[in-house]
Amino acid sequence: MNEQTELQRKGQAAKQASRKLAVLDTNTKNKALMAMADALMANQEAILAANETDLANAEAKGTSKALMDRLRLTDKRLADMAEGLRQIAALPDPIGEGVDAFCRPNGLEIRKVRVPFGVIGIIYEARPNVTADAAGLCLKSGNAVMLRGGSEAIHSNIAVIETLAEAAYANGIPEGTFQFITTTDRAVVNEMLKLNQYLDVIIPRGGAGLIQTVVNNSTVPVIETGVGICHTYIDETADFDMAEAIACNAKISRPGVCNAMETLLVHEAIADTFLPRLMEAFRKAGVVVRGCARTMAILADAQEATDEDWATEYHDLILSVRVVRDVEEAIEHIARYTTHHSEAIVTNDYNNARLFQMSVDAAAVYVNASTRFTDGFEFGFGAEIGISTQKLHARGPMGLKELTSVKYLINGNGQIR
Amino acid sequence: MNEQTELQRKGQAAKQASRKLAVLDTNTKNKALMAMADALMANQEAILAANETDLANAEAKGTSKALMDRLRLTDKRLADMAEGLRQIAALPDPIGEGVDAFCRPNGLEIRKVRVPFGVIGIIYEARPNVTADAAGLCLKSGNAVMLRGGSEAIHSNIAVIETLAEAAYANGIPEGTFQFITTTDRAVVNEMLKLNQYLDVIIPRGGAGLIQTVVNNSTVPVIETGVGICHTYIDETADFDMAEAIACNAKISRPGVCNAMETLLVHEAIADTFLPRLMEAFRKAGVVVRGCARTMAILADAQEATDEDWATEYHDLILSVRVVRDVEEAIEHIARYTTHHSEAIVTNDYNNARLFQMSVDAAAVYVNASTRFTDGFEFGFGAEIGISTQKLHARGPMGLKELTSVKYLINGNGQIR
Repeated sequence: MNEQTELQRKGQAAKQASRKLAVLDTNTKNKALMAMADALMANQEAILAANETDLANAEAKGTSKALMDRLRLTDKRLADMAEGLRQIAALPDPIGEGVDAFCRPNGLEIRKVRVPFGVIGIIYEARPNVTADAAGLCLKSGNAVMLRGGSEAIHSNIAVIETLAEAAYANGIPEGTFQFITTTDRAVVNEMLKLNQYLDVIIPRGGAGLIQTVVNNSTVPVIETGVGICHTYIDETADFDMAEAIACNAKISRPGVCNAMETLLVHEAIADTFLPRLMEAFRKAGVVVRGCARTMAILADAQEATDEDWATEYHDLILSVRVVRDVEEAIEHIARYTTHHSEAIVTNDYNNARLFQMSVDAAAVYVNASTRFTDGFEFGFGAEIGISTQKLHARGPMGLKELTSVKYLINGNGQIR
Repeated sequence: MNEQTELQRKGQAAKQASRKLAVLDTNTKNKALMAMADALMANQEAILAANETDLANAEAKGTSKALMDRLRLTDKRLADMAEGLRQIAALPDPIGEGVDAFCRPNGLEIRKVRVPFGVIGIIYEARPNVTADAAGLCLKSGNAVMLRGGSEAIHSNIAVIETLAEAAYANGIPEGTFQFITTTDRAVVNEMLKLNQYLDVIIPRGGAGLIQTVVNNSTVPVIETGVGICHTYIDETADFDMAEAIACNAKISRPGVCNAMETLLVHEAIADTFLPRLMEAFRKAGVVVRGCARTMAILADAQEATDEDWATEYHDLILSVRVVRDVEEAIEHIARYTTHHSEAIVTNDYNNARLFQMSVDAAAVYVNASTRFTDGFEFGFGAEIGISTQKLHARGPMGLKELTSVKYLINGNGQIR
């Protein structure tokens, strides 16, 4: 027999742990989560020292300031990670929850209950806080986890996961529950994507490039997350104050996230009056507009939008603007360019609101609210592992329930068919 | 621009149709389903003639009797197909069903409702009845469908789908809803597995080979169906009459289906008395036993089971039998060889029943009933598109609800974050 690779060895260990974890009581899991939070604080010095190593290496490589910031751990960020684990401990345990229960005419009792997936693979990029976050969410939902973080954060991630694992295993969590891939070679990702024997699902967290690699190469089932070209359509009957507040919030409050607006669509009857007004606020915030011909005729400083602009997630203070004939043309535009994440209409027209919500094919479809609300915490889930942009299994913000599968328990007294 | 392939052209047409279909009312869908059933009966002669062509071609190729039987359409089978469509019309429409609804402290109202996937790809083998069945289930759940049937049934399938499509389109169903791939070249399957632009999910229906091809090569999300190495464990406290009835039902009633038993596990304390008694019934039915060493010592006519036997779905009157120390060894054996389909324990011990149901990782875990009940109709779903053996999205029998996704509808009055 050939020697096992790191992934096979760790996959097998995770699978074995997952069987014990699946039947572990909630109290033990919660106690471990609290201990993990305490351990993060107790090990603060060692974790920050490991993070310094990553930062120094990144700096030597000429890493961008934005990436350095994502990589950096501080007292505050570690405390937030610990607080996140405590919050997960406080959430209801999804495992064992009854989803359905019914009796059949032959006397069979059928229950459908939530069970863990087994082993979840998570592939992520620079932020070391994802390590604690993912470990906590997977543990609470009864899953073992195989983590593959970005090579730039390797020392930080190892320091965090070793701290968490030690605390968890000392508090009744089966050894093997937390697996972290230390090989930084990119080929290991491809191996992980084919590890069907041990992984039940893979969730990529990161940029469009990472997500496409995972979707295109994984034979393990994937939950696709995160890319968002979000549209906001301002209808003829929109209240201008509301429309301006929503558009500014969706574009400016945090342009680098997936639920930020990338394209504004405006009804032609109000474009002349609404756009110049909105542009004032945008100019102050430094938003650059790329517009259709009609937008350019209204806004002197708008650049021309190319076909590519409509299909681009800027993650920046750039906005595509298009003047449309009516709600139907807005829906058409969205159907063509949507990434099925979050779309909004601002309107006071009942029929248009209804038509928009029925017709637009996205995880979250808003009337008179900002797309920035598409988020596990904002939805009240108390946690979030990502935002699913696919239609299979989970759609929109994913909390603990979305990290579970189900099984049917069937009880009889000798029924045959 | 390059010319579109058959798949791209049909995928695009299906996608366009799916947008209209997603907002179509239930009455129109039901009326169309009834018209489709009537059309099948009205077109009986032409469909049976097309089927004759397939049968003649198959015979000329020396096709096996079993496959010829699956391929054959008769008056009775066509009437059953029509009746199936009428039953689908009578089922509740899953689309629009509220799955959750809540308000947030900021006044946002959030509803989670069922929506269609969009376009479902179905890849199947010889049985032409799948064509009507899949078309009906996809239509009722608001999905367009792209069908790829086995080449041996090509004439039958085309006759069926053209009949159905004509009746549907004459009754308010958007043109393009039903797409059937006429290219019989196998390469077309690989193209279909990469058609992410148009397909939202692919469901393979067929043997293990087909399913593995789809799972290993599809970049479109897949719902894996069907392979079942089902175990039945007879515990020390089992009622022998019940145990015999369940074991015989699970093995003999229909050995070629995925919920039939392939391996029997017996507690060592009762093996000496139970196995010879069971074997009498099995011998009458022509069941051949392949056993572990202890089984062979009890049953003179048992052959030796190899490692491969425990991992084989016989689809035949062959049964692997192993004597185990206790429920825990039974659970261990199942953990090693399960295909996560259906597993059963026969027992009168409360703790063992509970442990078995908690520990065994399968879509359906039975106490004192036959694994043969894992079926959409037996579960009372009124329909079945297949049995999911994966953990993502759907697990176990899939009815209409499992052919849907969800979306969040969020209504506010100017909320920003």
